Amino acid sequence: MNPLGRRRWAIPGGHIPFPSTGYEPTFTSRDVLRLLNAGNEAAEVEITILYENRSPVGPYCLEVPARRLRRIRFNDLIDPQALPLDTPYAALVEANVPIVVQFTRMDTADARHALLGTMGFSGP
Amino acid sequence: MNPLGRRRWAIPGGHIPFPSTGYEPTFTSRDVLRLLNAGNEAAEVEITILYENRSPVGPYCLEVPARRLRRIRFNDLIDPQALPLDTPYAALVEANVPIVVQFTRMDTADARHALLGTMGFSGP
Amino acid sequence: MNPLGRRRWAIPGGHIPFPSTGYEPTFTSRDVLRLLNAGNEAAEVEITILYENRSPVGPYCLEVPARRLRRIRFNDLIDPQALPLDTPYAALVEANVPIVVQFTRMDTADARHALLGTMGFSGP
Amino acid sequence: MNPLGRRRWAIPGGHIPFPSTGYEPTFTSRDVLRLLNAGNEAAEVEITILYENRSPVGPYCLEVPARRLRRIRFNDLIDPQALPLDTPYAALVEANVPIVVQFTRMDTADARHALLGTMGFSGP
Repeated sequence: MNPLGRRRWAIPGGHIPFPSTGYEPTFTSRDVLRLLNAGNEAAEVEITILYENRSPVGPYCLEVPARRLRRIRFNDLIDPQALPLDTPYAALVEANVPIVVQFTRMDTADARHALLGTMGFSGP
Repeated sequence: MNPLGRRRWAIPGGHIPFPSTGYEPTFTSRDVLRLLNAGNEAAEVEITILYENRSPVGPYCLEVPARRLRRIRFNDLIDPQALPLDTPYAALVEANVPIVVQFTRMDTADARHALLGTMGFSGP
Repeated sequence: MNPLGRRRWAIPGGHIPFPSTGYEPTFTSRDVLRLLNAGNEAAEVEITILYENRSPVGPYCLEVPARRLRRIRFNDLIDPQALPLDTPYAALVEANVPIVVQFTRMDTADARHALLGTMGFSGP
Repeated sequence: MNPLGRRRWAIPGGHIPFPSTGYEPTFTSRDVLRLLNAGNEAAEVEITILYENRSPVGPYCLEVPARRLRRIRFNDLIDPQALPLDTPYAALVEANVPIVVQFTRMDTADARHALLGTMGFSGP
């Protein structure tokens, strides 16, 4: 299986919705990152979070094994620092091998859920 | 009609929602792949499913005739193996001619439906 | 203003939802195409509709004036032939100058509306 | 941190939903632009709004500091002219350094919110 993807990705539209309704965890409001490593070599990934009015925070380091998918809730990024709720952020994702990055939000703030999903923007 | 598209596509955000509400099949929760072959030659397509904690499964083989669209529910991919419900997965789509791949989810888990749609990521 | 965009676009995920609820036209279920011509020359556009089990239909011809946006409901494409409801289709959009194409669906089939929006796939 | 992105972006699908329901500002219907400047130099950004039946309006000028995100509600673009509600528009975004642009809509017109999100189309 040949690698597919790019090494640098950006998602400007991050925002962990504060209120949730419905039973957990199915309907917990969340921003989620999907990282696909279709290649034969483990991917070392660094995520940096950028904000409107403060300095970038990171890197959040993680690994995606070869030929595996990894799903990250932004709520689970706690080292070096948890993300504040209800605050706009952007995610910059950098890997040592090509990966593919998709972003999804489930928002249950108003008692009915809404979904949003988009590929990240990728660069060389 | 000239071909349009790429030969390799990835969708990291797969997840067949488990619960459904509303009458079938209109409101059955589902992940759907749309494969467009705008060219004059039939496309032989192989889909591989990648997971978080198990080896990739596939290929699921199918054909898209020349100048035709094909719509695939992931629930209908059963050979070599049906996809587990409520489990994150990624889809890798590889064809012998250029195609265009879009991913859509209808999620009716909470009695009102939500939609998510995005083009796949494409590579050479 | 320099032109921005590509000359060929594809949207594989077309499907005009059949049922609608809510007052018209705000909540009428619909698939919509947005064509942006940011350049200084009028764009002659041809749309071809591709299906699963029948031959492609088209071209549907239209113009987008220089430095203008044009919004097309697929329901309004009637020459040479109206699109069938509740039937999967793909749209191929070809222009003589670069344009930018976005696809949006509003689906009000279940009494609450859902939205889906994505850029088209563009090729040379 | 190296810059990531492109200098010209287009979003054809603008439309500020007129009605809103639910408490403000969480559930106010809105079109939002996210501008990410991952580089080390401030970005000077010009937004031009294009319409179906009138001349383009702009530029709306703003800055995105180095290594910062900026979130713009289209409702807040008032100089040189506020955007009309319930009117289709496209946004052309041009910067002097590479940036990444994402578009999101929250639509609460029918008492339940719907979300739509997509990367902009980017060109050289």
